[in-house]
Amino acid sequence: MAHSTNRRWLLASRPRGMATVANFRLQEEPVRAPQSGEVLCRTVYLSVDPYMRGRMNEGRSYADPAKLDSVMVGGTVSQVIESQSSSFKPGDFVLGYFGWQEYGVSAANHLTKLDLPADLLPAALGALGMPGLTAWYGLLEIGKPEAGQTVVVSGGAGAVGSVVGQIAKIRGCRVLGIAGSDRKTDWLTGSLGFDHASNYKSAADLSTEIGSSCPDGVDIYFDNVGGAVTEAVLPHLNTFGRIVVCGQISGYNLVQPLPATSILPLLLTRRATARGFIVGDHSEFFPRALADLRGWVENGSLKHEETIVEGLENAPTAFLGLFDGSNIGKQLVKVSNPE
Amino acid sequence: MAHSTNRRWLLASRPRGMATVANFRLQEEPVRAPQSGEVLCRTVYLSVDPYMRGRMNEGRSYADPAKLDSVMVGGTVSQVIESQSSSFKPGDFVLGYFGWQEYGVSAANHLTKLDLPADLLPAALGALGMPGLTAWYGLLEIGKPEAGQTVVVSGGAGAVGSVVGQIAKIRGCRVLGIAGSDRKTDWLTGSLGFDHASNYKSAADLSTEIGSSCPDGVDIYFDNVGGAVTEAVLPHLNTFGRIVVCGQISGYNLVQPLPATSILPLLLTRRATARGFIVGDHSEFFPRALADLRGWVENGSLKHEETIVEGLENAPTAFLGLFDGSNIGKQLVKVSNPE
Repeated sequence: MAHSTNRRWLLASRPRGMATVANFRLQEEPVRAPQSGEVLCRTVYLSVDPYMRGRMNEGRSYADPAKLDSVMVGGTVSQVIESQSSSFKPGDFVLGYFGWQEYGVSAANHLTKLDLPADLLPAALGALGMPGLTAWYGLLEIGKPEAGQTVVVSGGAGAVGSVVGQIAKIRGCRVLGIAGSDRKTDWLTGSLGFDHASNYKSAADLSTEIGSSCPDGVDIYFDNVGGAVTEAVLPHLNTFGRIVVCGQISGYNLVQPLPATSILPLLLTRRATARGFIVGDHSEFFPRALADLRGWVENGSLKHEETIVEGLENAPTAFLGLFDGSNIGKQLVKVSNPE
Repeated sequence: MAHSTNRRWLLASRPRGMATVANFRLQEEPVRAPQSGEVLCRTVYLSVDPYMRGRMNEGRSYADPAKLDSVMVGGTVSQVIESQSSSFKPGDFVLGYFGWQEYGVSAANHLTKLDLPADLLPAALGALGMPGLTAWYGLLEIGKPEAGQTVVVSGGAGAVGSVVGQIAKIRGCRVLGIAGSDRKTDWLTGSLGFDHASNYKSAADLSTEIGSSCPDGVDIYFDNVGGAVTEAVLPHLNTFGRIVVCGQISGYNLVQPLPATSILPLLLTRRATARGFIVGDHSEFFPRALADLRGWVENGSLKHEETIVEGLENAPTAFLGLFDGSNIGKQLVKVSNPE
């Protein structure tokens, strides 16, 4: 076999507080040959996502914790190198869950063949993948937007948030995105068609700024970040408002949660709903959602953007960059060139 | 006319922090004669409810604030004295919204004739009235209990909570009620059939006690109180749990909310929902809910209890007692004897 060595990142230690590069260890191992029904793949793109921070902890988040000295989990676009399954042939592109490594062997039935042009392969981990599905389900099935309503999305320039705002525009809503740099807010209003964007790091008074952008109040708050940004949004929530709880990235590296204002009195007086979700619980919606997302990308109403770091060796840096907002759109690691 | 003088309680001043008797003023005025289409009624039972505290504030809660120097609002069971409407005749009992006063004139179409035996008239403001409807809607339509699931209700011995727990038992759930005295917890388990009851004032560690009573976690938390009690319950919430936000009485007299732990991370990791509601938004359910409630009362599976204070002059004291937990079941003021 031509590719005898696999490099992979293991979880070396559990962080206390902010995760660092030292929590990961790069290791080499021989590539194993696929058995009957299995497929050997090479990773082309690796997705790094905020949820992985939860997996690094000992306690249960939504999923069991990642195991120490095991390969870090993660979604990938991979290319088939060797197949012992009639479902795949060498050269096929697949969506898999190979994790932070160059090669992997998987049962064929855990892989999905990708029928996408080469320029859309990265989007299979972004607007046309899990983040896009997350935006679709959270906004449409939990948020239930109606034309003319106001949608605010935090983490607005991220992989999920940037899709949320664009779907909200497609549905005829007024959209405010909140992000952490002028480059991001310019992108949201200049390229993605958001009506307003606020830079929470430079705003003199974020809550006042939100009030000015949303004179009719906020019907849907799609929350990716939590913390102070969320506290600035919530007073503007309308009666019968919906809080879609998709992420709380501002708190993922905290040892102790910060004191907050309870939202229960607000939910009561506004007769509002807050609902947390993870998209994997709702796979019955995926075919419809993917058809919508693909159609919007093809007709130009949904723009997708990926921030791509080169080289598996940079996976920890790319991952940690999510927590200081380095990425615009989906953060990926390019692990190899497709053949 | 035999009854020429009406005594009534006005809102004299807005409280800052804990409401006191000094916020109310007793006034006399002549009784006005009903015009065509109107009915003159005498109050038999006046309902005092926690929501009235919100109306005493200047700011908007769910409804507009009560007006200074106007009669305090409130639901009543009243008896018709004089009718200028073909819909009612003297002696009829009606459900109205006459407020804290002995007599009132109302348009006939704002009144509902009560078809109840005399011993159930107080229940028309409790288990067979707004609190019962609130329990029914919140538990069944928001909580969506399934047999075998665990329901925790705070304010468990109150007008709403005591009905919530009993409906949950009817639906085959395990029920823990939280209340503030041993007399209440004994009533919940001894008379109402709750599986467990915790006295939050005397518990050594309320959260540990809840964990022991709910070994399978909490599927539905019906919250009437908020604050520290709620913080003790929430860590036990199960995946896909539902928080029914019905009241937050622990905070109604606070000038500033106490610092809390944000529930958004919990909603996310547990994929849980928190929803606030007021029952008046859901009147389409009332006929079905009232039929259920009446059926359960008549077949003995739903017990109703009222704490009744005599005399309109004691209305402020009865109302303020809600905030130190004086009442078991529904708190009423008996304003007059039916004729």
